[in-house]
Amino acid sequence: MTQRIAVLGATGSIGDSTLAILAAHTQNYDVYALSGYQRLDKLFALCQQFEPRRVCVPTADVDSFSQRLNEAGLTIDVVSGDSGLIDIATDTQVDTVVAAIVGAAGLPSTLAAARAGKRILLANKEALVMAGQVMIAAVKRHNATLLPIDSEHNAIFQCLPTAIQQDNTCIHESNHGVRKLWLTASGGPFLQRSFEHMQQASIAEAVKHPNWSMGQKISVDSATMMNKGLELIEACHLFDLPESKINVVIHPQSIIHSMVEYSDGSFLAQLGSPDMKTPIAHALSYPERINSGSQPLDLYALSGLEFIKPDLQKFACLRLARQAMQAGTQATIILNAANEIAVSAFLAGQLRLTDIANINEQALTEIQVPLLDLNANIDDILAIDKIARHHTEALVTEMA
Amino acid sequence: MTQRIAVLGATGSIGDSTLAILAAHTQNYDVYALSGYQRLDKLFALCQQFEPRRVCVPTADVDSFSQRLNEAGLTIDVVSGDSGLIDIATDTQVDTVVAAIVGAAGLPSTLAAARAGKRILLANKEALVMAGQVMIAAVKRHNATLLPIDSEHNAIFQCLPTAIQQDNTCIHESNHGVRKLWLTASGGPFLQRSFEHMQQASIAEAVKHPNWSMGQKISVDSATMMNKGLELIEACHLFDLPESKINVVIHPQSIIHSMVEYSDGSFLAQLGSPDMKTPIAHALSYPERINSGSQPLDLYALSGLEFIKPDLQKFACLRLARQAMQAGTQATIILNAANEIAVSAFLAGQLRLTDIANINEQALTEIQVPLLDLNANIDDILAIDKIARHHTEALVTEMA
Repeated sequence: MTQRIAVLGATGSIGDSTLAILAAHTQNYDVYALSGYQRLDKLFALCQQFEPRRVCVPTADVDSFSQRLNEAGLTIDVVSGDSGLIDIATDTQVDTVVAAIVGAAGLPSTLAAARAGKRILLANKEALVMAGQVMIAAVKRHNATLLPIDSEHNAIFQCLPTAIQQDNTCIHESNHGVRKLWLTASGGPFLQRSFEHMQQASIAEAVKHPNWSMGQKISVDSATMMNKGLELIEACHLFDLPESKINVVIHPQSIIHSMVEYSDGSFLAQLGSPDMKTPIAHALSYPERINSGSQPLDLYALSGLEFIKPDLQKFACLRLARQAMQAGTQATIILNAANEIAVSAFLAGQLRLTDIANINEQALTEIQVPLLDLNANIDDILAIDKIARHHTEALVTEMA
Repeated sequence: MTQRIAVLGATGSIGDSTLAILAAHTQNYDVYALSGYQRLDKLFALCQQFEPRRVCVPTADVDSFSQRLNEAGLTIDVVSGDSGLIDIATDTQVDTVVAAIVGAAGLPSTLAAARAGKRILLANKEALVMAGQVMIAAVKRHNATLLPIDSEHNAIFQCLPTAIQQDNTCIHESNHGVRKLWLTASGGPFLQRSFEHMQQASIAEAVKHPNWSMGQKISVDSATMMNKGLELIEACHLFDLPESKINVVIHPQSIIHSMVEYSDGSFLAQLGSPDMKTPIAHALSYPERINSGSQPLDLYALSGLEFIKPDLQKFACLRLARQAMQAGTQATIILNAANEIAVSAFLAGQLRLTDIANINEQALTEIQVPLLDLNANIDDILAIDKIARHHTEALVTEMA
């Protein structure tokens, strides 16, 4: 049976990998809908290639994009903005939503897909970092399926017992012998550099990730290890575990993508080339497997795999993520918002790289918001996000 | 519910590890029967500790052993010899048979356990190397459960999809996306030594395994990599795959115990300390997990994990194993028998270490036996084994 797919965030790197797989398996997958935001030329080219039934563009671009499609003889329903994304994510024709929009902008559509009971391939971190409780509750209530495509969370998913995979991946205390999760981290471009060197790092140096080719925001997050902190928070929600049950280990070669430790002393690990096509293909075809088109890992060529305990003084953002997770969802919303503002300021040349952690810590300490309870809704979440951004902008101005 | 366990080969290293786990989980496991062969003092001590209902000793020792038990006030049914082992393996009170007798001597009782529909924790290699087809057919026909406790096969088992685990672990072509199996090997004590060095190796040097503490026979097999060859043959039968689907990779640190490669580019691996308690505990408690009491792997202390393609000229036994597997069961019986004779001769100072492969190759080339078909029974198998041992002894005498 053909799976009908909506790729939200089709023009980013996750979109690229997803569509490369879908293009190679047209007999099993139908590209039903696409969305794009900044790279509309690329989105147009994708529309020509895949001829989806629907496409979502920014509201200001509806007319011009529609006209371009018409001129090319393509009959595609054009929708726009947040409501357009939600419309696609909940379309009854759609089986699977690839949630690959970066940042808080992806939150409403991902949550809508959960409420519509879709199979969700989750790359959007914010859905779990900002709205983990709401998101997981919606997945359970509406019988949706959440499949992580971040390489780390997908690796953990692959290493979990089937019984846990099929129970919304929630691990309850000691369940099926799972003792701990181990998130691997590359350590980013400054692993072998001093803190002093990091303080003086240029933007070009900070966005140069050693193993993966990614966007600028996430590359900076790798350099500060905030990325691993956000993934830690995601993993807590996704697998229903306290942060104390999730360890981070730096593995600079990025061959082992994460691990599950069991009570009998076994560690199960997923290894592979650093190519997002592998976890995406896994999630697309789960519980079966398809060829992902990724470069096969040459095991015989591997050597010198290392494992290092992260230095929480140098990578303070990782420590802050644990603190925020302990404090509650409002704190993880603040941390995520503050970090987005701080990274933007760094990329705009207003801050030093190491100031990002300082700003994040100040934001966590200073910003006073009400505690979020289990009944919190998306407006409560976005309200805290807004307060945090506003306050952090002031902190940046002060520091810059 | 309590699982009643028979440990056949209770005084060897697998027996030690198994009984250490059982002693720590008396609420879940009942040591119902034990067997021993050479170390009867140790077997007696185990009888005192575990008070099994039945014990099997060599036929010549029945009276003296019974008397010792009586004097100690222990009421234990004493049986003896092959028939005693089979009696225990098929006892209706027994749920699980730990098949840990080394060599061809373990074959009849292991096969009897399969025919009695038992849950079999398999450490005895010969059951698969000599009688793989018969064994697997018996497991399927009598609804037995075969759980490998060799660290490598157990690792592969853990990395397979649940659907394959529950279907007698048989992998059919492309099933569930399994592309290849990867057996890891330590490379033994001569990995970094020249072939010339190996030719002159002393017995003491050859039995010094870098990572595992094991018996002499298996330690020599590690030095020649015949052990990995036998494991390759085992894996072919256990997982129903041709030898071309199973790769061997040398991983000198013995941290990754084997891997499964999937069509999407994922490799699933099982890692752990080099401690047999982990795979044994896994198999005992499967599909749940129990604490094995093994030293937890300190991931942060790992470094320099290496992966090397084996040199088939230096480790000719590995090449011979593939040849034998291609040729058919009669060839794997000959190879196994020839190797036992050659290793004994090496340990008796009659051969050089590197002569083992020469003897094995000569045996494979020279010994003419009828092809075994699917209807072969254990007598056909033992007949070939006997011919091969006889012929190989002559070859050894010639060479020595």
